[in-house]
Amino acid sequence: MCKIFFFLSLFVAINFSSVLGQQDKPIALALHGGAGNILPESIDKASEKAYLSKLEEALDAGYSVLEAGGSSLDAVVTAIYILEQSPLFNAGIGSVLNADGKCELDASIMNGNNLAAGAVAGVRRVKSPIAAARAVMERSSHVMLSGEGAELFAASQKLEMVENDYFYTEKRKESLKKVKEKEKENDDNEGRGRLNESNNYKFGTVGVVALDKNGDLAAGTSTGGMTNKRFGRIGDSPIIGAGTYADNQTCAVSSTGHGEFFIRAVVAYRIAALMEYKGLSLQEAADEVIHKKLKNMGGEGGIIAIDKEGNISLTFNTSAMFRAYRNHKGKKEILIFGE
Amino acid sequence: MCKIFFFLSLFVAINFSSVLGQQDKPIALALHGGAGNILPESIDKASEKAYLSKLEEALDAGYSVLEAGGSSLDAVVTAIYILEQSPLFNAGIGSVLNADGKCELDASIMNGNNLAAGAVAGVRRVKSPIAAARAVMERSSHVMLSGEGAELFAASQKLEMVENDYFYTEKRKESLKKVKEKEKENDDNEGRGRLNESNNYKFGTVGVVALDKNGDLAAGTSTGGMTNKRFGRIGDSPIIGAGTYADNQTCAVSSTGHGEFFIRAVVAYRIAALMEYKGLSLQEAADEVIHKKLKNMGGEGGIIAIDKEGNISLTFNTSAMFRAYRNHKGKKEILIFGE
Repeated sequence: MCKIFFFLSLFVAINFSSVLGQQDKPIALALHGGAGNILPESIDKASEKAYLSKLEEALDAGYSVLEAGGSSLDAVVTAIYILEQSPLFNAGIGSVLNADGKCELDASIMNGNNLAAGAVAGVRRVKSPIAAARAVMERSSHVMLSGEGAELFAASQKLEMVENDYFYTEKRKESLKKVKEKEKENDDNEGRGRLNESNNYKFGTVGVVALDKNGDLAAGTSTGGMTNKRFGRIGDSPIIGAGTYADNQTCAVSSTGHGEFFIRAVVAYRIAALMEYKGLSLQEAADEVIHKKLKNMGGEGGIIAIDKEGNISLTFNTSAMFRAYRNHKGKKEILIFGE
Repeated sequence: MCKIFFFLSLFVAINFSSVLGQQDKPIALALHGGAGNILPESIDKASEKAYLSKLEEALDAGYSVLEAGGSSLDAVVTAIYILEQSPLFNAGIGSVLNADGKCELDASIMNGNNLAAGAVAGVRRVKSPIAAARAVMERSSHVMLSGEGAELFAASQKLEMVENDYFYTEKRKESLKKVKEKEKENDDNEGRGRLNESNNYKFGTVGVVALDKNGDLAAGTSTGGMTNKRFGRIGDSPIIGAGTYADNQTCAVSSTGHGEFFIRAVVAYRIAALMEYKGLSLQEAADEVIHKKLKNMGGEGGIIAIDKEGNISLTFNTSAMFRAYRNHKGKKEILIFGE
């Protein structure tokens, strides 16, 4: 009898602790909609409200996935999809136009549980680049597909395909026109050739990082790249290690900024490496990379990141980063300026 | 008088030490021509001799640049060019054919002195992909260019352009035919669709790392990718951090193997991170990444690497890696099997 009581107690205790454990497990999500050097006075109240509202919508949608017990990957894709389908950001609809007046989109995603990763570069007809990146990760033996080949793969996987003008907005057409006019002026006046494209990287890449109830981290990034870009330029967004990285042992990171510097400094993975190999906290690692390493190289931009405890870092060396988070304590903020 | 003698002694001493310093400064170079699981009995003597001889030719050419006081970047490009122009390796001439029977080439290069980097992906008409990667690094504001855009840039920089069949060899045509036949058999017999491309990554990417008299490290990698590849697949070779990395503070690395794993593990930069943030030696870091991290993930391949003292690591978890080096003590070896 005593023995039965003992086992019964043990059974109850185990179940109780597992329920408690389940309830105690932190969930958290953070996202960005790009970083750059804008000032509060340069953005009107209506625009600011629209940005904050869309960031919140994406945050809530992603967080709901986590609350319902969904995976961090599902949360990342859900939140990024909302930002891709909004014309406010330089990803999906509202992407900037390249030198030929086309939208060429890049995205990547990584699963911190098994270091699986997927990316697409230079796609023109995939409605959701982040969904395509996920399909590459989960349904191909590859990590990175590019151009028409990536579209062929996406179509073979029954992902929704669209015409390129699905992504066009008047605002981006105007931007391209202005950049081209300026370029022509430069040509005419100084014979210096094309406008330095690096002046024009500033805004709107989107990214999400999440921690789910299973303790799995995930990160994703989606972008339209640079206005007037040429030469099949690939930035950091589809590069695992630079634009996106996730490892349950350390953290999940999504980058935004002047991509060339982020590639050279291997920004996303460098933050994970500083945690794994130097024992830094998430925030210490992010500060080291964004405020020291990257800044010393002359690179502008920022990251959002989350660690396995649900701590969040939103770190940038520009004046602004569109960002939102809800952390493991339930605290929620949606912000544009300041750090 | 005593004062003059003192200053004279100081002057002589400074000059003597600077001459000695110059002479003492180590130079070293290492290269690979791919890694994979072949056995000594599977390669005939004549082929083995041809491989060893071409590896030595590239080694000597690169090393001569260093001896003459040339930069590590010049040495890397000189040695890789020789391997690209040889039909023995899967880079430049002799590159494998993609599913459409075309050669699509990738390359990347990095300067350890300033972390400048350049890469091209999926180019078909650039005679020397490594030269194109260097041009991207030195003459554009970008790090990575792809496809036709990359070719347009290369042509604008007066790099030598060729027709795609410049790279064809009968051997590679045969390989593609065989893979396609096997694929068809699979289709016919099991309806399983295409042959798993990951069985076919094995050989021939080339890479070089070097340390010059100024103490500058550089790394470069060039490849034709995978036979029968589709979907604009991009492997690790043009990815900074995965296939190539160089930082004077730590090391220069070039990777070869199953690219998808190298991307997910950020192999090249991870070795540098283990040195910088965990204080490991070059060989300890290489062992940790190739024999533990990568192997545990199921990734096959290897790296060549060099540190700022001229120590060299040639580390692989396959049965073979075509490789050669000449270290800071002048020791020279050209090897295929064993580690």
